Amino acid sequence: MSARYVALSGGVGGAKLCLGLSHVLGDRLSIVVNTGDDFEHLGLFVSPDVDTTLYTLSGLVNPETGWGRRDETWTFMRALEGLGGPQWFNLGDGDLALHVERTRRLKAGETLTAITGDVARALGVKPRVLPMSDAPIATIVETDEGVLGFQHYFVRRRCEPVVKRLRFDGAERGTITPEIRAALNDPELRGIIVCPSNPWLSIDPLLAVPGLREALAAAPVPKIAVTPIIDGKAVKGPTAKIMGELGITPDAVAVADHYAGLIDGFVLDEQDASLSARIGTTVALAQTLMRTLDDKIALAQRCIGFCEKLAGRA
Amino acid sequence: MSARYVALSGGVGGAKLCLGLSHVLGDRLSIVVNTGDDFEHLGLFVSPDVDTTLYTLSGLVNPETGWGRRDETWTFMRALEGLGGPQWFNLGDGDLALHVERTRRLKAGETLTAITGDVARALGVKPRVLPMSDAPIATIVETDEGVLGFQHYFVRRRCEPVVKRLRFDGAERGTITPEIRAALNDPELRGIIVCPSNPWLSIDPLLAVPGLREALAAAPVPKIAVTPIIDGKAVKGPTAKIMGELGITPDAVAVADHYAGLIDGFVLDEQDASLSARIGTTVALAQTLMRTLDDKIALAQRCIGFCEKLAGRA
Repeated sequence: MSARYVALSGGVGGAKLCLGLSHVLGDRLSIVVNTGDDFEHLGLFVSPDVDTTLYTLSGLVNPETGWGRRDETWTFMRALEGLGGPQWFNLGDGDLALHVERTRRLKAGETLTAITGDVARALGVKPRVLPMSDAPIATIVETDEGVLGFQHYFVRRRCEPVVKRLRFDGAERGTITPEIRAALNDPELRGIIVCPSNPWLSIDPLLAVPGLREALAAAPVPKIAVTPIIDGKAVKGPTAKIMGELGITPDAVAVADHYAGLIDGFVLDEQDASLSARIGTTVALAQTLMRTLDDKIALAQRCIGFCEKLAGRA
Repeated sequence: MSARYVALSGGVGGAKLCLGLSHVLGDRLSIVVNTGDDFEHLGLFVSPDVDTTLYTLSGLVNPETGWGRRDETWTFMRALEGLGGPQWFNLGDGDLALHVERTRRLKAGETLTAITGDVARALGVKPRVLPMSDAPIATIVETDEGVLGFQHYFVRRRCEPVVKRLRFDGAERGTITPEIRAALNDPELRGIIVCPSNPWLSIDPLLAVPGLREALAAAPVPKIAVTPIIDGKAVKGPTAKIMGELGITPDAVAVADHYAGLIDGFVLDEQDASLSARIGTTVALAQTLMRTLDDKIALAQRCIGFCEKLAGRA
């Protein structure tokens, strides 16, 4: 079987489903990952969602947090404190290896896509992990405290400021990468799955990359999204809070509406079955909370089956 | 008392005497440190002799090795290995904080001198630690295995290749820094002490900095050197091996000859008292092997007393 899938994903929540998809599909999966959260810190290029994806798929991830590395040490941060360096963004000692290597290779002129591919291979990750852009695109959060870079909003200010608007600086300079275009043009492609990531913070940046939304639309396969909202609440992170601040009712209906025109199907949590009639596209019900690896694999299989059904194959 | 001293130093051996001088002189000591060993590794600027000096004077140094930090962890190197990164040069997790901060600030256009000064203050180091140059000057080792950068010779090839010639690339572009010139022009200056570092690898690069040798010569104070060779052997490192390869008899006499014209006095180890008559300058005998802090302080006091004597003050 050579049926291939493309997933669109952000950080922790998206990576969970990607891990399930990876178990089912292996190298038949390509993951387009948000890089709007990327930033330079201490002169190092940090790519949080790409890293979370790589660590999750390689089994290196810290199972307590869902990001960073397991068995991490923090000697660097303690020494940095002794030098009077900034403490608001934690860089683990092992995690630093990835940032240092990526920074070195970016400065040597290599693309983030090429570097990420090599790291994935070195870590034994079978799916292709494709950054949404090789040009820097920065998610900027306009808040009641002023304009904040994403990590300043997310980490330094712990998502506390009220979000007024989100924008993606540099998007106009970006372009869909050849690797993403190839994945979306692959004749073996059978479906596109929008992971249960934050639509506004994690998926919108990706859809802002010139050419990407059009290439998704042109792909002649089912496109589905998995709800990141269950019973009006986000499993993790500020999705529901941000929706409220943007004047959007924080429920799965609003997420499906947000993806209108992009998707052919929506995976709604079983707890929200009563909302089915209000979802403006075909609905599949599933247990979308992924606590265990089995949960992740089951949801992955449900997504693949849904795509097959939408394509008239099942 | 405001009598000030300048020390010229390389790595581990020199730093031991600097620690002794630091205990006696505190902020009345300025240390001009070799930067010929500096190199870029993984995109990070590493300055081994400056680091060894800072770690030794702040008490952070690893007492087992004389370089690097005590209580160091190595998670970064293990993670780097997992990514297929180079393993020949070990960067400890805590040590990385200094390299990352220095690299960031150098790329922002700050001088190595300014950065080193701030780090010294943050670490509570009282003496001024002055890199020999703010422009990159690289010690290059011409060997029977070809031309090697210093760290490639010293660390990667463990000093095994036969040295044919040493050169200091970029020296012509360097210039004595304002901070070193000020230290040497200070009216309170009472002496200049060449530490027991490798004359060819650690002190010669420093003397190659345009203007530095002349400024040393112009300073109207006694200049002394402490032998790095005891009984024909180096306390540590490849000094004796390199002297042999360069066709020089590895003894204290050759070291004193090497510094002819620069120094007014030479501190010879008590074990080598029989060589006194062959030293071409005034000799002081001392126990130059520094095992304990008391040894370091005693040798520092001996050096200061020797300068006072040469100046006719004692």
